Amino acid sequence: MNFPSKLIEDAVNEISRLPGIGKKTALRLALHLLKQKESVSESLSQAILKMRTEVKYCTICHNISDADICGICASNKRDRSIICVVEEIPDVLAIENTAQYNGLYHVLGGVISPMHGVGPDELKIASLMKRVEESSENSKVSEVILALPATMEGDTTAFYITRMLAAKGIKVSTIARGIPIGGELEFTDEVTLGRSILTRVNYSPE
Amino acid sequence: MNFPSKLIEDAVNEISRLPGIGKKTALRLALHLLKQKESVSESLSQAILKMRTEVKYCTICHNISDADICGICASNKRDRSIICVVEEIPDVLAIENTAQYNGLYHVLGGVISPMHGVGPDELKIASLMKRVEESSENSKVSEVILALPATMEGDTTAFYITRMLAAKGIKVSTIARGIPIGGELEFTDEVTLGRSILTRVNYSPE
Repeated sequence: MNFPSKLIEDAVNEISRLPGIGKKTALRLALHLLKQKESVSESLSQAILKMRTEVKYCTICHNISDADICGICASNKRDRSIICVVEEIPDVLAIENTAQYNGLYHVLGGVISPMHGVGPDELKIASLMKRVEESSENSKVSEVILALPATMEGDTTAFYITRMLAAKGIKVSTIARGIPIGGELEFTDEVTLGRSILTRVNYSPE
Repeated sequence: MNFPSKLIEDAVNEISRLPGIGKKTALRLALHLLKQKESVSESLSQAILKMRTEVKYCTICHNISDADICGICASNKRDRSIICVVEEIPDVLAIENTAQYNGLYHVLGGVISPMHGVGPDELKIASLMKRVEESSENSKVSEVILALPATMEGDTTAFYITRMLAAKGIKVSTIARGIPIGGELEFTDEVTLGRSILTRVNYSPE
């Protein structure tokens, strides 16, 4: 693509480095910004830079945070006896948006994947164990929920963590797998459907 | 959506103001930037701000430019007797990428649309007339090509410009409308197909 201006070309190149944004979309976004007031581009670039340079990670759960300890870990309204282990930060947001969970979180920062050179030491597994061990008498961790992806890497990670926690007498659970609510049996893949039959639960209409 | 950090929330809000980018995509982009080196966010925000504040518009054709006169208008390799009139800046890029045109351009900055309050005075039509009038003897404008959208607004604008140029004895042409190359008759809308029969051209295989 030939650009009429080096400035546009630079901006398009930078914008198209973002995932899922190609040169054409980047050009569309750049031309959109040119049509808007200067303040729009200003606040956009400032927000990006500020976020990148000033954001912190919670020293307890490794979630994104504005302070050293995140809002969830600092809250006294949360159930401190349950920790939900997730792969990445968006997973915390996804679970929070369900409004069905009131415990704490632990962000691993990935899953064990020998293919990609990710071993247990690259993840925040040691700090999870430390949290469980150091939980004091009046706020003892009694359950760890594994909310990891239903992939081989996710299962490997779940297995690894379960084995480490088993010795400490902590209850380990995993989120239910099965047919999504509203899902049609016909269009569900056979592995999910097969497992949903094997792991069937007692029927209890409320 | 609840955000764990005000910084992320601000960045997501700013990014999602871009056209075609919702909150979820904006969050994905923000988290992607957090995973990259700080320099990535730095160069992105600098490129955006620099583009917005420093970009110029060619005083002749109103295309984006790094200088007062754009590369196309300044070039002595272009045919200065033909001006191609387009609606917006991306149209120039699209035509340039065909490598089939070697004349000059004129960016109107829109099309006549009474519905949206856009009259001829809001567009760069007066400056087009001035360009045609002021073209000197040795580089006289002999043809104006209208490459405007095939909409009612585009047609209205084309009609308006044609009427103004007719008095000056300038040849006015418009880009061909019809079935796209590779297009199937079956799936072409009836207006396009109907007009392509009415405006049929002599068959001349090369």
